[in-house]
Amino acid sequence: MNKLEKAEPNTADLMSDIGQQAKAAAARLARAGREEKDAALRGAAASLRARVAVILEANELDVSAAKEAGRPAAFVDRLQLTPERIEAMAAGLEAISALDDPVGETMAEWRRPNKLKIERVRTPLGVIGVIYESRPNVTADAGALCLKSGNASVLRGGSESYHSARAIHACFREGLKAADLPEAAVQLVPTTDRAAVGEMLRGLDGAIDVIVPRGGKSLVGRVQEEARVPVFAHLEGICHVYLDKGADLEDAVPVIINSKLRRTGICGAAETLLIDTNAPEGHLEAAIKALLDGGCEVRGDAAVQTVDVRVKPATEEDWGTEYLDAIISAKMVDGVDEAIDHIATYGSNHTDCILTECYGTAALFLSRVDSAIVLHNASTQFADGGQFGMGAEIGIATGKMHARGPVGVEQLTSFKYIVRGSGQTRPE
Amino acid sequence: MNKLEKAEPNTADLMSDIGQQAKAAAARLARAGREEKDAALRGAAASLRARVAVILEANELDVSAAKEAGRPAAFVDRLQLTPERIEAMAAGLEAISALDDPVGETMAEWRRPNKLKIERVRTPLGVIGVIYESRPNVTADAGALCLKSGNASVLRGGSESYHSARAIHACFREGLKAADLPEAAVQLVPTTDRAAVGEMLRGLDGAIDVIVPRGGKSLVGRVQEEARVPVFAHLEGICHVYLDKGADLEDAVPVIINSKLRRTGICGAAETLLIDTNAPEGHLEAAIKALLDGGCEVRGDAAVQTVDVRVKPATEEDWGTEYLDAIISAKMVDGVDEAIDHIATYGSNHTDCILTECYGTAALFLSRVDSAIVLHNASTQFADGGQFGMGAEIGIATGKMHARGPVGVEQLTSFKYIVRGSGQTRPE
Repeated sequence: MNKLEKAEPNTADLMSDIGQQAKAAAARLARAGREEKDAALRGAAASLRARVAVILEANELDVSAAKEAGRPAAFVDRLQLTPERIEAMAAGLEAISALDDPVGETMAEWRRPNKLKIERVRTPLGVIGVIYESRPNVTADAGALCLKSGNASVLRGGSESYHSARAIHACFREGLKAADLPEAAVQLVPTTDRAAVGEMLRGLDGAIDVIVPRGGKSLVGRVQEEARVPVFAHLEGICHVYLDKGADLEDAVPVIINSKLRRTGICGAAETLLIDTNAPEGHLEAAIKALLDGGCEVRGDAAVQTVDVRVKPATEEDWGTEYLDAIISAKMVDGVDEAIDHIATYGSNHTDCILTECYGTAALFLSRVDSAIVLHNASTQFADGGQFGMGAEIGIATGKMHARGPVGVEQLTSFKYIVRGSGQTRPE
Repeated sequence: MNKLEKAEPNTADLMSDIGQQAKAAAARLARAGREEKDAALRGAAASLRARVAVILEANELDVSAAKEAGRPAAFVDRLQLTPERIEAMAAGLEAISALDDPVGETMAEWRRPNKLKIERVRTPLGVIGVIYESRPNVTADAGALCLKSGNASVLRGGSESYHSARAIHACFREGLKAADLPEAAVQLVPTTDRAAVGEMLRGLDGAIDVIVPRGGKSLVGRVQEEARVPVFAHLEGICHVYLDKGADLEDAVPVIINSKLRRTGICGAAETLLIDTNAPEGHLEAAIKALLDGGCEVRGDAAVQTVDVRVKPATEEDWGTEYLDAIISAKMVDGVDEAIDHIATYGSNHTDCILTECYGTAALFLSRVDSAIVLHNASTQFADGGQFGMGAEIGIATGKMHARGPVGVEQLTSFKYIVRGSGQTRPE
């Protein structure tokens, strides 16, 4: 299994070869029917179940190395596989196989006065490069989403999950082979050489159409900085909840608590609470005390600090910080306009929420806040492809090109125009 | 008028300032209603009509300089304005003002089981950089399409059309001012310093969201090579017509002639004719003779050369050449599969056509040819936003990200998700 690692082949040549194989596989996948793709996914799921012991053995190599290297417990936990986690991956592949096939779907069709019939039809993007941290399950998720959407994938996981990723990847090969699809449809970069990432960011001689980074800010930042091909990503999720004077406190407080505390480590978790200075007095106090009582550290401006001694002072830096922890910054703003301005200055165009019963104010917020997802009276933690009904997502994008918000199988497609005529020529 | 040119300001500072102004204008434009945008467009059209004499005077400076510099007649013709051409520009602005406003349009909406209502709504992209050759009319077209779609634009025309472009741009300023929109919504780079283009390609410190190059292969090639922001473009249009054995000759020949000869200089003009070796004998001869008799040079493979002494031999280079002239390359292929392979090898993913009455063969071609536009029994010269019913286009894109095919006002937009709830929180 370690032959390639030991041999240390010329990484540039290796990656160029991977790119060419991916391109060839993409051409085949583009014309695969949904039965073939779904059979490969179900085959991979069956293979995961059949190989639990082998996968756990490979995973143990990674886990013990990580422990020896003194990696933090949270890191080791994300790396660790169990029979339950492998079953969850298999079930995930089956769920993705059950999604509608986006490829070939007619997005729009119309007829011209000269009787030409024009149809806009979804096609795969081509080859997707996925660069991720040492989380074995991403190998399964990302490979499956790309395959379902008819795209070949080149997966490069964190080096500390290398053995686990290889064992999982072997299941894709089995599934693809059984479905008579090219094994290169899902490739795992077979080296831990970091130069391989640089090659992917340069696009493997035009073979890679888009890069999806999955991981923390340093990984995504490097990819966004260096990639010479399009990237679907978000650097951070500095999500705001704005508590308007028109909010219904009974509905609003649970949404604030859920936005911040349901899970603090996800990108849709709220990081800043903005409170309307014009709100009835009880609003501020109720919101802040509920957060504090829920175990959340609150860093407030001067006005917020007056509410409770437990509130710590916020610094300028706090307004631009993604805590990913049970900490929230809180600030008074003079109505929705100032809330919108604050979000424009400090936000990350990810997900922002307004709490109000005043629909005019909500409309203003929803239209002016320039984020991929804007919510009215609902938790920011709904920022998720599954919660949107997309089935599964490969990530959330905050760019404005092509994909924005949750990136599911539809967002991993392009389209073409099919024009049907009966001998029409274009007049002068 | 020439003060800025003479002063040669620090171009980097100038461009950075243009970027910041564009960003600010984009924020205002994003919330402009269609009345405001349309009023600005109609105002610019009125201004064009009112300033015909001034525009012609400015144009004369460019035209006489081009003549002095010994520029070819075709170049001077594209540069030259007349009262009719100015009227056509004004009418073009009015036509764009009459298009539906894409911004705010609901692209999809659905309700989740938890009653969340999710809506996908079109938003502007932001700031669009347009880099074009010395064609004064592009200043009007491109500025208008960006404005209609709610985007601020930074226009950089060829230096030899500088005076004309400035005179046209002054009309946008008048229209925008009268509509109470920021004049920086449509900016023309006020220097002919080539370094300004480099600054735009680097994105003006993140201010530019997308670059649209309009011009020949060398301009587009440089932009695609050097741009650090997304580009909507096509490098070339090597468009194919495949004459299948199942074609109806009477319908097919006029389509071949129109595809090649209606206008030879546009990107949708056919450059290669592929003829099925299994077609009845008359097919090849009829097609080739019609082209020759129409005044087209034919460069054929050995089999095509046997048809007529006027056919010249094709070299390997011909299959990858965009002539943009009354020249076509012609080759025999063994059925639709070989035609698809030829197009995959030599094509440019722009526009390709199959001529056949066999719908099964057509379906194969339409699905497998990986081009932005694939046609069945219709001329490749329909590859045009206006012909598609999009109203107007800023260009045709062959990339697979975001926009593909004709780029009209809809393709110059992004979208956001608006989620409406009534206090929903996400369960664990």
